[in-house]
Amino acid sequence: MTVAADNSEDTRLQRLQDILASGAIREASRLLRSLAPAEIAHLLESLPPGEREIVWNLVDEQYDGQILLLVTDEVRATLIRHMDPAQLLAATENLDLDDLADLVQQMPSAITTQVMQALDDQRRKRLETVLSYPEDTAGGLMNTDTVTVRPEVTLDVVLRYLRRLGDGVPRDTDKLFVVNRDDSYLGILQLSQLVSRDPEDTVAEAMSLALQAITAETAKSEVARRFEALDLLSAPVVDEQGRLLGRITIDDVVDVIREEGEHQFMGRAGLSEEEDMFAPVLTSTRRRALWLGINLATAFLASWVIGQFEETLAKVVALAVLMPIVASMGGIAGSQTLALAIRGIALGQLSAKNARALMLKELAVGALNSLIWAVVVALIAGVWFQNITIALLIGVAITINLLFAAISGALLPLLLHRVGIDPALAGSVLLTTVTDVVGFLAFLGLATLFLI
Amino acid sequence: MTVAADNSEDTRLQRLQDILASGAIREASRLLRSLAPAEIAHLLESLPPGEREIVWNLVDEQYDGQILLLVTDEVRATLIRHMDPAQLLAATENLDLDDLADLVQQMPSAITTQVMQALDDQRRKRLETVLSYPEDTAGGLMNTDTVTVRPEVTLDVVLRYLRRLGDGVPRDTDKLFVVNRDDSYLGILQLSQLVSRDPEDTVAEAMSLALQAITAETAKSEVARRFEALDLLSAPVVDEQGRLLGRITIDDVVDVIREEGEHQFMGRAGLSEEEDMFAPVLTSTRRRALWLGINLATAFLASWVIGQFEETLAKVVALAVLMPIVASMGGIAGSQTLALAIRGIALGQLSAKNARALMLKELAVGALNSLIWAVVVALIAGVWFQNITIALLIGVAITINLLFAAISGALLPLLLHRVGIDPALAGSVLLTTVTDVVGFLAFLGLATLFLI
Repeated sequence: MTVAADNSEDTRLQRLQDILASGAIREASRLLRSLAPAEIAHLLESLPPGEREIVWNLVDEQYDGQILLLVTDEVRATLIRHMDPAQLLAATENLDLDDLADLVQQMPSAITTQVMQALDDQRRKRLETVLSYPEDTAGGLMNTDTVTVRPEVTLDVVLRYLRRLGDGVPRDTDKLFVVNRDDSYLGILQLSQLVSRDPEDTVAEAMSLALQAITAETAKSEVARRFEALDLLSAPVVDEQGRLLGRITIDDVVDVIREEGEHQFMGRAGLSEEEDMFAPVLTSTRRRALWLGINLATAFLASWVIGQFEETLAKVVALAVLMPIVASMGGIAGSQTLALAIRGIALGQLSAKNARALMLKELAVGALNSLIWAVVVALIAGVWFQNITIALLIGVAITINLLFAAISGALLPLLLHRVGIDPALAGSVLLTTVTDVVGFLAFLGLATLFLI
Repeated sequence: MTVAADNSEDTRLQRLQDILASGAIREASRLLRSLAPAEIAHLLESLPPGEREIVWNLVDEQYDGQILLLVTDEVRATLIRHMDPAQLLAATENLDLDDLADLVQQMPSAITTQVMQALDDQRRKRLETVLSYPEDTAGGLMNTDTVTVRPEVTLDVVLRYLRRLGDGVPRDTDKLFVVNRDDSYLGILQLSQLVSRDPEDTVAEAMSLALQAITAETAKSEVARRFEALDLLSAPVVDEQGRLLGRITIDDVVDVIREEGEHQFMGRAGLSEEEDMFAPVLTSTRRRALWLGINLATAFLASWVIGQFEETLAKVVALAVLMPIVASMGGIAGSQTLALAIRGIALGQLSAKNARALMLKELAVGALNSLIWAVVVALIAGVWFQNITIALLIGVAITINLLFAAISGALLPLLLHRVGIDPALAGSVLLTTVTDVVGFLAFLGLATLFLI
């Protein structure tokens, strides 16, 4: 969260924006040449549309592909829109297969066909394999550039084989995969083992059987959890028959983890984790409008509840002044329970099995907190409006709302998850609907019974 | 987010909870022996306190240390509480230094002293080095188990050296660090290069100079960004003089990225990313009470604003029914801009330089959306209360509030960041205070001017 003040990238962004503002294109171009593709990608995401397009045109074309991979989906779409077919085709050259697969899925289908035709047979076949799996599975994440060895050969033979491969050994290789004659996955040979053991040992002696392969259909969130739990750098991916298809490397998993975090955070505001900070105004407006509309419906529901008590309100205006407090306290308390539950579900740590324990604990917390805050609010309201009944009513209403907030905060996300709705997206809206309705109903309902 | 239905870990959690419920301790113990430390850690986090303590006592002591490292800080504290000094001392054996450093910082200081005394001189000195840097810097993340080589030797010599080291080569080594005589960092030698190049080449020929070392004082969020941008598996850490101190591996960076995501998500509800789902009721109550108290203060501020218009409300009760809609629409719209801005700041993509561009874009989005929704709300309110003035007033009030929401959503987090307050924690509270106050003020103020 804390960003170092002496952060060189921020300074570069500022310098570039100063240069662009002054219109010194040649100087901007020189600065860009001093940046790595990842730095340029980061910079493009930070720029408003106009400056973004200028900078994108200044970027050395040989880095187009890498940069397109590094920006978010939305920013990528805006960049692709400014490229002609020849540039797009050039951008797909020299990419890893998993990266290429990511990229072609967002390109116009005419370009995809051209890309496919430009590949040699082996690469095309491999690309088709990766594309045949949904993007959010292990198969969609994997790369097919595995280096495989047989169990019966000696480490010395493996070393000679690797030297023959030379640059064919991917830079981030940390382990080789051991397979038998029909490509079935058997185990792994860590490079650290390969270089530290006696070269006369066989692969079978030096290999590890402990790493279970991931099947291609596994969800990518599950892949991320496996990598985190076992501190993996790379892992084999197999088909249903156990044949090695490829490997997933940690850099792709890091992206999954970052996305999961942003999905929860942005989802709560009804936004996608891919949302471009500088998306076109009309695109943003359309998306936000939907979310505002949903929330408006729930706001009108709360208003309708208040409307049922118009007569009561007309007699005691103090109720109108105080009623937002009851709703707000419930919303805040409920959103805390909700956050715990959504994270628990995302991490696979909350299920129907332990939901009861969570709900009971949250009810206890809610009960204790309502004791504290019901008294505080009652005292303040009593002094403010010089009315003991109102003081008692608001205290009771807050207690009722905090208890409902605890129950719905714990159970709503589980219910949504059960019926296949993403709790990170819908949980917050539904929860505040409950706490608004219950809050107004309890406070105004009790007032109608005891005050009128 | 989606968790595979056939997830083996979930099934195991359910089986274990069934077994615990039936009291078959021996069976539970057998199930635990079939699980990896990471799986046990995950399981412990999912269990309510009582069951958690039972399971913790059943765990094979040799895995205590590893499991303690894998659970969140809060859960770790509850587990440590149930261990006696001898068990704690035993748990620190056979750990990597960066892990050991993490662990001893949470232990009673008497234990820490004992742990230090039990180490050999070299390890103690290294541990002190790691402990001398704050936990949230590169120095606090790093491990000192680097394998270093000199530039002038041949790859063959390196290979023989590694074979002599044998098990001394850390399992997740993907690169060696090249240093000169006084330990100054020069560059890296990828294992994939070491095994694929001619053994007669020198390290100087095979090494890469491209990877800049990270200084020990670098903030860990900056370390994470560097790893993500450059797809690193490990990176060297140096002191101010450029001397190699250790290395950071991606598994620790993955934890940082996960924590950052959870910090934003949980922070919005006033919770810490370390929050234990089953924290003791009193602990939770105390923490939540603080957050509820802060929010109560802002709710009373909004109530006070409403209170200024008691006479108006007494005359036109419809205003009380409709006023939550104005506040709610502003809160929702503002929280969307806020989410974009908080993420932008966290990623280092939003600063004073491009804040104006974001604010103008958000103002445009807010203006367009207020056009749509002001009309919708005005129509519904007009039909509901058969009053054109009320319809016009609520439309104008919503427009005003949406524009204020856009400005404060974009600027508040930057202001908070500037004065050193975490926007992920305080942003949401402050924003809804603004949208509540502005919403009520605009609607009731206009009504007082034009309706009474």
